[in-house]
Formats: sequence, C-alpha cells, structure tokens
Amino acid sequence: MKLKAVQDYYPEELSYCYGCGKLNEHGHQIKSFWDGEETIARFTPKEYHTAIPGYVYGGLIASLIDCHGTGTAALASYRAADREPGTQPPFRFVTASLQVDYLKPTPLTAELELRGKIVEIKGRKVVSEITVSANGEITARGKVVAVQVPENFIKNTINE
Amino acid sequence: MKLKAVQDYYPEELSYCYGCGKLNEHGHQIKSFWDGEETIARFTPKEYHTAIPGYVYGGLIASLIDCHGTGTAALASYRAADREPGTQPPFRFVTASLQVDYLKPTPLTAELELRGKIVEIKGRKVVSEITVSANGEITARGKVVAVQVPENFIKNTINE
Repeated sequence: MKLKAVQDYYPEELSYCYGCGKLNEHGHQIKSFWDGEETIARFTPKEYHTAIPGYVYGGLIASLIDCHGTGTAALASYRAADREPGTQPPFRFVTASLQVDYLKPTPLTAELELRGKIVEIKGRKVVSEITVSANGEITARGKVVAVQVPENFIKNTINE
Repeated sequence: MKLKAVQDYYPEELSYCYGCGKLNEHGHQIKSFWDGEETIARFTPKEYHTAIPGYVYGGLIASLIDCHGTGTAALASYRAADREPGTQPPFRFVTASLQVDYLKPTPLTAELELRGKIVEIKGRKVVSEITVSANGEITARGKVVAVQVPENFIKNTINE
C-alpha cells in the first residue's frame, strides 16, 4: 500500500492548489510526509523551471517552501490533536507570511528535498522552518507562518 | 513604438528565467517598467494558478514579487548609474532573500498590479518593497533583497 501524503487527505474542494493540490493537473502536486520529527517532500524541477541557466528559479523554490509549509502545518495539527489525517474535521492551512533565504544557487539537475521542522503551534497558527536541498546540500531556507482556513470561509467560497 | 521593459534588455543568455525571461515560452514573462519613482508590472493569472478555489496560490504571488524585485533592482541600478537599459555592461540580479506577507486572499479573476519602491542601493545589493494589488486593493506585500550576478559567474555558467 502506498503511503498517503497529507495532501491526499485534503477535502476534494480544497485540492486544487497549483503547488500541492492532487486535482490540479497543471500544478506541482507536492506531497508532504512525516519523517520522524521532521516533515519531508521531494520535487524534481522541469528543465524550464530555470533562473540563470542551470539553476532553479527562485519562485519555484518559494512555491515549494510555501506548500510544504502548509502541508507541514496540517501534519503537525493532526499530530498535536492526536488524530490521523483523514479523520474529521480536516486541517487545511493557508500562508500568512513566507520568508526565503537563497543561500546558494540550486542546481536544476537534481531532485530537491524539502525538510520541515515545527517551530510553534499556537491556536490556528503553525510556524515551520523549511530547508531545500539538492545533492545533499542545503541551498535555501524558509520560514512559513500558516493559518488554518476558517470553516465558514471554505463553505462560503464553495457555495458561491 | 512599444515601450521596452527592463527584461527586454537582459542579455539573451540570461533571458530564460521562468518568472521573467522573454525567451522562456513556459514562463510568466513579466515585464517591469518605471512609473515615476515606482516600478510597475502587470500579470493576469491563469485559471489553474489557484490556491483555495477562486484565489491565487501564494507561490505565484511570491514568484511575481521575486521577479519584479530583481527587475526593479536592475531598473534602479541603471538609473543610479545615469545609464539607459541596453547600455553596457548589463545589470542582472538574482534574489538573496524574499519576504512575502499575504494580507488577504488575492482574487483569481483580476489582472494583478505589482508596484515596486527602492528601499536601498548599496554596492551590488538593491532592496525593494513590492505590493501586489487586485481590483485596486493591496492583497500582498513583499520585500526583495537582490544581488547583482557576478560577471564571472555568468561567463562560467554559459561556457560550461
């Protein structure tokens, strides 16, 4: 049985995010899992995700950090509530703020590994730190402040 | 005569960025111009650039801020040097760090307007503040620290 990512448990109507929605056929469809006390996601950029030739453009790195950050927030919330993803009600987060430090150019040739650490869970807010590595070397470091989507916002949006 | 954006003056070998390269057919090809003391760029998201249904995903907003920030840095450097874009040597920047605050959901239905203000020019570093507006309302605010690409880095990369 293939291990499910937290994004596989997002409600269907919230599964269209370009970065991580399993139903967005144009998008990146990133998948976030636990790996011990950290979270992990992997992504292989396409050839055209370039900045300076040979290197990944910063916007993709920001996108991956953003979506792995909201995925990490959801994973952390289920664990904090002592619930499994898939139990009700679902946890689904959006980003309040995003900080990315580009430490060195990220080579375009490699699979990227994102690792997340929970910094803080406070009410509806989860703060995580995310690293991006290529060939085992950290090339970018991010911080994501994620906020749980209000249930009435979801209902109003879907019923519009 | 159509006004050229600063990205139209980037050297050909540095015009493949997914966010702003005029030669990246898959990319966003954003164009940054002066508008008085501010810089401006416009972008209309595609339907699939969604987060929560009806709203733009944060990674796109981060990408647009990032590339308009490096474009703003190039524009500011030409102006500071009292040179026109297109004169040699070219100014081309990459992002050292990026901060984005998502103030409210950005509707997917509208053309987005990005406005940049120069905060600091110091040596090879340019700091700018960028806002993102939809329907005349600011929905996100960013800060970009851009650093000029070293000329030897470009030569080494292109000749690899």
